[in-house]
Amino acid sequence: MTMTELTTSSSLDAVADLAAQLRVDSIRSSTSAGSGHPTSSMSAADLLAVLMTRYLRYDWDDPREPGNDHLIFSKGHASPLLYSVFKAAGVVSDEELMTGYRRFGQRLEGHPTPVLPWVDVATGSLGQGLPDGVGVALAGKYLERRPYRVWVLCGDSELAEGSIWEALDKASHYKLSNLVAMMDINRLGQSGPTDLGWDLDAYARRFAAFGARVLVIDGHDLAAIDGALAEAGAAAGDQPTVIVARTIKGRGFSEVEDKEGWHGRPFPPDMAQRAIAELGGVRNLIVHGPRPEPVPAGQAQTADAAGAGAAMPTYPVGDKVATRKAYGDALVALGAADPKVVALDGEVKNSTFALEFAEAYPGRYFEMFIAEQQLVAAATGLAARGYKPFASTFAAFFTRAYDFIRMGAISLANLRLAGSHAGVEIGADGPSQMALEDLAMMRAVHGSTVLYPADGTSTAALVETMASTPGISYLRTTRGAYPGLYPAGERFPIGGAKVLRSSDHDDVTLIGAGVTLHECLDAATTLAAEGITVRVIDCYSIKPIDTATLTAAAEATSGRVVVAEDHHPEGGLGSAVTASLLGAGQKDLSVTHLAVREMPGSGTGAELLAWAGIDAGHIAAAARRLTK
Amino acid sequence: MTMTELTTSSSLDAVADLAAQLRVDSIRSSTSAGSGHPTSSMSAADLLAVLMTRYLRYDWDDPREPGNDHLIFSKGHASPLLYSVFKAAGVVSDEELMTGYRRFGQRLEGHPTPVLPWVDVATGSLGQGLPDGVGVALAGKYLERRPYRVWVLCGDSELAEGSIWEALDKASHYKLSNLVAMMDINRLGQSGPTDLGWDLDAYARRFAAFGARVLVIDGHDLAAIDGALAEAGAAAGDQPTVIVARTIKGRGFSEVEDKEGWHGRPFPPDMAQRAIAELGGVRNLIVHGPRPEPVPAGQAQTADAAGAGAAMPTYPVGDKVATRKAYGDALVALGAADPKVVALDGEVKNSTFALEFAEAYPGRYFEMFIAEQQLVAAATGLAARGYKPFASTFAAFFTRAYDFIRMGAISLANLRLAGSHAGVEIGADGPSQMALEDLAMMRAVHGSTVLYPADGTSTAALVETMASTPGISYLRTTRGAYPGLYPAGERFPIGGAKVLRSSDHDDVTLIGAGVTLHECLDAATTLAAEGITVRVIDCYSIKPIDTATLTAAAEATSGRVVVAEDHHPEGGLGSAVTASLLGAGQKDLSVTHLAVREMPGSGTGAELLAWAGIDAGHIAAAARRLTK
Repeated sequence: MTMTELTTSSSLDAVADLAAQLRVDSIRSSTSAGSGHPTSSMSAADLLAVLMTRYLRYDWDDPREPGNDHLIFSKGHASPLLYSVFKAAGVVSDEELMTGYRRFGQRLEGHPTPVLPWVDVATGSLGQGLPDGVGVALAGKYLERRPYRVWVLCGDSELAEGSIWEALDKASHYKLSNLVAMMDINRLGQSGPTDLGWDLDAYARRFAAFGARVLVIDGHDLAAIDGALAEAGAAAGDQPTVIVARTIKGRGFSEVEDKEGWHGRPFPPDMAQRAIAELGGVRNLIVHGPRPEPVPAGQAQTADAAGAGAAMPTYPVGDKVATRKAYGDALVALGAADPKVVALDGEVKNSTFALEFAEAYPGRYFEMFIAEQQLVAAATGLAARGYKPFASTFAAFFTRAYDFIRMGAISLANLRLAGSHAGVEIGADGPSQMALEDLAMMRAVHGSTVLYPADGTSTAALVETMASTPGISYLRTTRGAYPGLYPAGERFPIGGAKVLRSSDHDDVTLIGAGVTLHECLDAATTLAAEGITVRVIDCYSIKPIDTATLTAAAEATSGRVVVAEDHHPEGGLGSAVTASLLGAGQKDLSVTHLAVREMPGSGTGAELLAWAGIDAGHIAAAARRLTK
Repeated sequence: MTMTELTTSSSLDAVADLAAQLRVDSIRSSTSAGSGHPTSSMSAADLLAVLMTRYLRYDWDDPREPGNDHLIFSKGHASPLLYSVFKAAGVVSDEELMTGYRRFGQRLEGHPTPVLPWVDVATGSLGQGLPDGVGVALAGKYLERRPYRVWVLCGDSELAEGSIWEALDKASHYKLSNLVAMMDINRLGQSGPTDLGWDLDAYARRFAAFGARVLVIDGHDLAAIDGALAEAGAAAGDQPTVIVARTIKGRGFSEVEDKEGWHGRPFPPDMAQRAIAELGGVRNLIVHGPRPEPVPAGQAQTADAAGAGAAMPTYPVGDKVATRKAYGDALVALGAADPKVVALDGEVKNSTFALEFAEAYPGRYFEMFIAEQQLVAAATGLAARGYKPFASTFAAFFTRAYDFIRMGAISLANLRLAGSHAGVEIGADGPSQMALEDLAMMRAVHGSTVLYPADGTSTAALVETMASTPGISYLRTTRGAYPGLYPAGERFPIGGAKVLRSSDHDDVTLIGAGVTLHECLDAATTLAAEGITVRVIDCYSIKPIDTATLTAAAEATSGRVVVAEDHHPEGGLGSAVTASLLGAGQKDLSVTHLAVREMPGSGTGAELLAWAGIDAGHIAAAARRLTK
């Protein structure tokens, strides 16, 4: 086998040879794995060949080099192409490509994830790479202030996802001239032609209407690609660039070109052999493309500056404060101490109190308007650049971004999410705003941390801890103001719980979090007057949960436990508590689980807590029943 | 108080008086409730006054009249305006408006829900009314073939939601000339100005690029509104219409007009008094607008035709079939028997096997392309019209639509969702495609039904049952083919379970569903050879769950239970089983819960089931440990 090297000054003929190699390797890797998407890779091979040879400024030996451009495959199923690019860059061997792709225990997964050092974010759920790229571009332009570009390869099928349009809207709003979306318009989706087919004008109109500079090209004309990438990469003006590339699915292998029925299907070995022959055989070209631009001294912000310890706010015991207010206060304190802390909100910042941060640190606040998918995606992109994003909206509306949160976990992103106005406690606005599923949703995310504090002091302490918590951490806050419970200086470790009432002869354990903790405390007072002594636990850390404290309480109260939560019965606090107790081998449990079991309407918070059977009266009644 | 009646021939001066009434009543109702969004109502009052007087064809005495137009407030927070419209229509009394709005136990909820007979779908999570309206318009144009129009009022803030663009894309793709979106461009969001402010040209370009006919007007010029609604309502051509109306938030009360800081705030009583005075006082006009057009005989499809009993497919015991294939087969059988059954898919119909239905009944299949939010919203709109939608995509991608599913429940919609390719079992594609959160997500939805069959025969039976199941029902299907377990004729009631192995001296209960049931059966065989006798339960109905069968098994096996699921540990099958057992008061439980506890990569299904510790080997080992 000959080995030839390409450089930025190689001819387009040499680049054509590279494009053939990328196609051949896409075919070989997917056929060897018996799985994958060769035809979706082949349509974009010319784009990638020109990009990596002439425009992608990247130090392949140092993927953490801050000046590197970023390459995101929003069409993550074109992973054979991406991995073939990695081979051509010399960082993945041909052997790994042929034996590692889609195999157990290997890093060349079916869709790219950041277990690979050259991958910023996991893709594979369509319509997410471009929104994530907006986050990376925001970091580059406004925080790092580095001249890197963000190149995103999108498929045409995923342009049907609303999240793409949320991304373009924000990209133009924030004037992200460092963002280039390459649209691989190959006309064919998984199960048939796309909505718009090869109507490039229709696409161009949409992208232009959303504020992008649009370049329409033949995606197999290397000179046209070269011209478009040069123009795009210049990052002039204040618009993101969209390259609309007319391409052919399966390009380069006449048996499948532009044919339906070949999505997500590797070629059988005999076909692969014919395809490779038609493409001129196996090559092992190595590309030495452009290097990252040196960052002018003094221009780059030191995003790495360590903050001093934050002086977190505390609130007097007994004084009423809403935990959402404490969230805002804490975020400001954290922002003062740690320049990596950034905040985003979905246009409800005056309700979530992210407004306080936006006013204190406008340069580190990103308004995402009412676009929760983009809210989480931007946070993911910012996290990929080492920032510590806190993203907030009403807890109910994080359901809009669940796919992005789930993919954030696969992206190994450290995201801090704060959902306010949770539960029937919000009252008058009604069920659409209530978030009675958020704890279930967030607990089911891999590696997540789920927190639900009941007072201002614990909220502030937990916000500080979230800044150093890996993975997806979620803070649930409450609309109404409730009395402070804890003195300044109290510590709230992740995975902890607080015993607020206890004696050496407790009859029942009451477990609450957030608003229901206050109801448990009221119930305890009522019950004490009746001679029933209860242990009250503030289960502020729902995941991980404090099994030691819970089992000790269950032991002490003969297994009699009442759990009350402002959430549907499935997957929330009650589920976490019982899983913890059973997992620890606790026997003889008598658990009463109070939760919101019917469809709420409007009302006052107190009316609805009573209606749902999760207020102090119902908690006390449940405790009484258990002691009978 | 004078009472005056308006008719379709009333002058625009009279309509102006009605608009003032709608504003005054929006103010009065929200001030009386101490909660609500008067200023967001006032900006759209002129649009609604003209619409209800001259264009909305509606029999207010018979909201179920099939020829009625549909009025959807996508900006659900403008509920004071909607309810004021209902008062002007004579169907809600002034007393109810003043004492019922946002009050406990009343139907005039903070955001509209179908507890009101004139409301098709619940709104309040922004960006959903228009997508839902697409579903209603699809029904009108393609199924009912009735000349009704669907009028949707949108706010400008919600135009930042990607779902709006998914809706417009589908509206133009399906040529929904019966759909009219009225965009209330009042410039101000909740916490500040919107992204595009009053840049009507920018909005118009976007709507036009997405295929709509666009009419730009001054939203307070009654003659201009009249002209635009006349043009829109003619429903000529093959495009949806978007009316871009420049409006002023708080219009009509000079103290708040176009001012920030008044979103979602009722006026204090003294301000309300001044506002009402400025608007000319309280009125009690009653409107007699246009009546629904008579449906020409023979034109309307009888959507009510009852189908004969469906001949559901069955599969030989022992023969391998994928449950997703059985889903497709069953859907075709159901379609033959019931003309109300319709199907939708997110452009993966060849994977979910919805393709079979699309080919058999192309007139009742709606391709939503890769737009899962619109997929569920269209199903919601179709359900509102009495159809029985089955919507399918990969289970993982229903996370994209969680907010729509949650709102579907609040909409009281009967939605059937089928998620394929669930779990690590899918193998090579990797974690982005795996759906390890879907059971938790779906269980947490109010009133939901969650099904996870293990073979073809049970899948087909459950699909048939879903057609008559109220609320949100979810079917989880598997990628791979597994042996048939049940003979033809076996019944699978919702809330049931099957005992597949049992004796009168069982040592341990093994509980599985879907792919893990097959692993449990294999484990049982292994264990039997070792002299350990196990009871094996197919927990195909995860919600509701068969508590009687579970408790009987737990009793019989001294509380020793192994639950295995291809899902994260939180909120899925294990959680459902333990909640059931504890809720039934089961004591002395020793539960081993096997689930996917780490982040998977690619591999074969068998490799990943083993890696996750949920295959037959791990299940058998867990059973052995429990019997020691």
